[in-house]
Amino acid sequence: MMKVEILCTGDEILSGKTVNTNYSHIARRLGEVGLDVIWGTTVGDDRASLLAAFREAGGRADAVIVNGGLGPTVDDLSQEIAAEACGVPLVLSDYWMQRMTESYARRGRVMPANNRKQAMLPEGAEFIDNPIGTACGFAVTIGKARFLFTPGVPREMRRMLDEQVIPRLLKLGGITGVTRLKRFHTFGIGESRADEMLAGIPGLAIDGEIKLGFQAHYPQLETKLAVRGADEADLNSRLAPVEAEVRRRLGNFVVADDNETLEGVILRELRARSLTLAVGEDYTGGNIAARIAPLAGAEGVFRKGVIAAGPSAETLRAESGASHALAVSAQLDEGPDRPDFGATITVQIADARGTVSRTARLIGGRDWVRVGAVELGLDCLRRHLLGLPVDERIDFERR
Amino acid sequence: MMKVEILCTGDEILSGKTVNTNYSHIARRLGEVGLDVIWGTTVGDDRASLLAAFREAGGRADAVIVNGGLGPTVDDLSQEIAAEACGVPLVLSDYWMQRMTESYARRGRVMPANNRKQAMLPEGAEFIDNPIGTACGFAVTIGKARFLFTPGVPREMRRMLDEQVIPRLLKLGGITGVTRLKRFHTFGIGESRADEMLAGIPGLAIDGEIKLGFQAHYPQLETKLAVRGADEADLNSRLAPVEAEVRRRLGNFVVADDNETLEGVILRELRARSLTLAVGEDYTGGNIAARIAPLAGAEGVFRKGVIAAGPSAETLRAESGASHALAVSAQLDEGPDRPDFGATITVQIADARGTVSRTARLIGGRDWVRVGAVELGLDCLRRHLLGLPVDERIDFERR
Repeated sequence: MMKVEILCTGDEILSGKTVNTNYSHIARRLGEVGLDVIWGTTVGDDRASLLAAFREAGGRADAVIVNGGLGPTVDDLSQEIAAEACGVPLVLSDYWMQRMTESYARRGRVMPANNRKQAMLPEGAEFIDNPIGTACGFAVTIGKARFLFTPGVPREMRRMLDEQVIPRLLKLGGITGVTRLKRFHTFGIGESRADEMLAGIPGLAIDGEIKLGFQAHYPQLETKLAVRGADEADLNSRLAPVEAEVRRRLGNFVVADDNETLEGVILRELRARSLTLAVGEDYTGGNIAARIAPLAGAEGVFRKGVIAAGPSAETLRAESGASHALAVSAQLDEGPDRPDFGATITVQIADARGTVSRTARLIGGRDWVRVGAVELGLDCLRRHLLGLPVDERIDFERR
Repeated sequence: MMKVEILCTGDEILSGKTVNTNYSHIARRLGEVGLDVIWGTTVGDDRASLLAAFREAGGRADAVIVNGGLGPTVDDLSQEIAAEACGVPLVLSDYWMQRMTESYARRGRVMPANNRKQAMLPEGAEFIDNPIGTACGFAVTIGKARFLFTPGVPREMRRMLDEQVIPRLLKLGGITGVTRLKRFHTFGIGESRADEMLAGIPGLAIDGEIKLGFQAHYPQLETKLAVRGADEADLNSRLAPVEAEVRRRLGNFVVADDNETLEGVILRELRARSLTLAVGEDYTGGNIAARIAPLAGAEGVFRKGVIAAGPSAETLRAESGASHALAVSAQLDEGPDRPDFGATITVQIADARGTVSRTARLIGGRDWVRVGAVELGLDCLRRHLLGLPVDERIDFERR
């Protein structure tokens, strides 16, 4: 198994001023395509530390992803120290100079002189394209490891990781074929229950042919299926039955697929059927409306939101003229937070046929309960719109 | 200068499943008390990696903070590998066994057998107390560095860091006295402008006697003054004049101090004067109400929120019966996001004396503009309540 290391550079990261979400993104994506990260290193914009880190990683790993230090300013040192570690000079990439110059020209601007530094690469380095920025990547060999350099700007790094870095790593590791990641977002089940629900599906396991993973973002849970195939057809034929079985078992708890969101699914359904919506809420204080009203395309759909105690869904619907009204209210326990502290949440949905309602007792601190109530309200609306039972017990409630 | 390394352990962190906010918290806190982090390492729950990481850090740093791996389960390996690196056996801490047993007994429970593992420490280790959990810390020397072990649970780590670890590090580094961190939260000025506004204050600089630092959390900026003194009296006498001068220069842009928030300041002012509030918003879609309505103590103050196009602050005030009404609306540019994309934000505040209003053109993508509009609306309300000018130009707007 190829050993991969992630080496993050920069004073902002080292000092904790910036939380290192680039690291977690890179590590997660590698795990999803079956590559194992065995070590992470963070150093600042400091010549001696960078050189030591490159040498140590080159003695330890088979491949190293370096992130950061490719900018135009004097504290960006990645190319310089890479050249030093390789014992080669920096040479100008005419190709990248031209690409940068053209990119500035297209926006009617002249390239600042210090951008030239970004086209200086270690002699003999493999060029790695950056289609959306001025920091190109490159690859060199230091010690026994192949080093792949990526920019610190998250948007650029993420695109280059998927399009340029991961294919190279898979090739280096002798891993052939194509990969896909299928994601299900659920509300109402915890990780251990989801794990039980999916037990025994042939080929699906933490270390199975189709790799199963969970990521909890309370109150939602993400279930991930990572699969590798010889080609797209092979991948489809192997994934399809497992995906269908996972969907069947997770059932009505699946609120969205892949890059979709619960609120996006609600909006799509409302738009598709030319429906409109009003939202009333008390304890959630605007958090339910804030999930839907700002969405692109919600202008013609979201009629009104009211944050106040009292109004029923039926009243809201009548006042606003919306086809559907969602009202969520909470009766909080008295006193300070304690282990069994909680709230009773009442969700009402009114449409032309009348009002359906759902009551749930959620346990947890005030903020926890609020977050749960927002999701419960939205999920009831989704279920109602899709003709699913609104009253299905969730893991977070006690009866 | 003492070199400090942070060594984070655990498969969840290494694999990116959990974002490593413990690292950034530790590094930031150390920076605030004048300690320099020179290296960060992340390894998984793996014996060989842990041992190698301990040995490398012991050859590189003067002090190493290890985070994680102190739990009761078999994949928690920090004590075991620390003992191996020191060449000593693990021995049971009767003291910690007793503390854990008592803690369980107080909650009417019996301690599970596997918690015993958490009282096994390397022979000769210095005990580091954990007042709120079952994972005690400890310190040992490996190579030339003192290693201080802390639990991965953020709440426990943070408390032990401040109360136990930092004092030990300051002592190790021969740094005496007491420290304090003074924080100002501002809205409307960027980091470079704040830096200019604070230029030339005696003793205040990035590397000054009183250490100046900024942390941008758009749309707010945090300005930090870190100071060390021989004792509290010395510290007060040195900080007071600088703090006063910083406050004077940042002026009306300061929205809150230390652990306060903009919305908390607004609520405090409303409560102190027995005022009540209604909020109307369109493009911000509930996000303004969601900052105030859920606060503890807002029940009697927040009368109503409305999310809909149109209603003026005056109308809102009349309808809701609140003493004050804040209305924030946005006129978004047409078409897709582009470099000069933006919105015109109108803020109205109505009270018994009439309506004041403020218009600002914010530049940025849709989400960026929305976040700015929320803050602008809240800040105008704060300014109005405190008798400050509502119409002071901010860095994010174009005129």
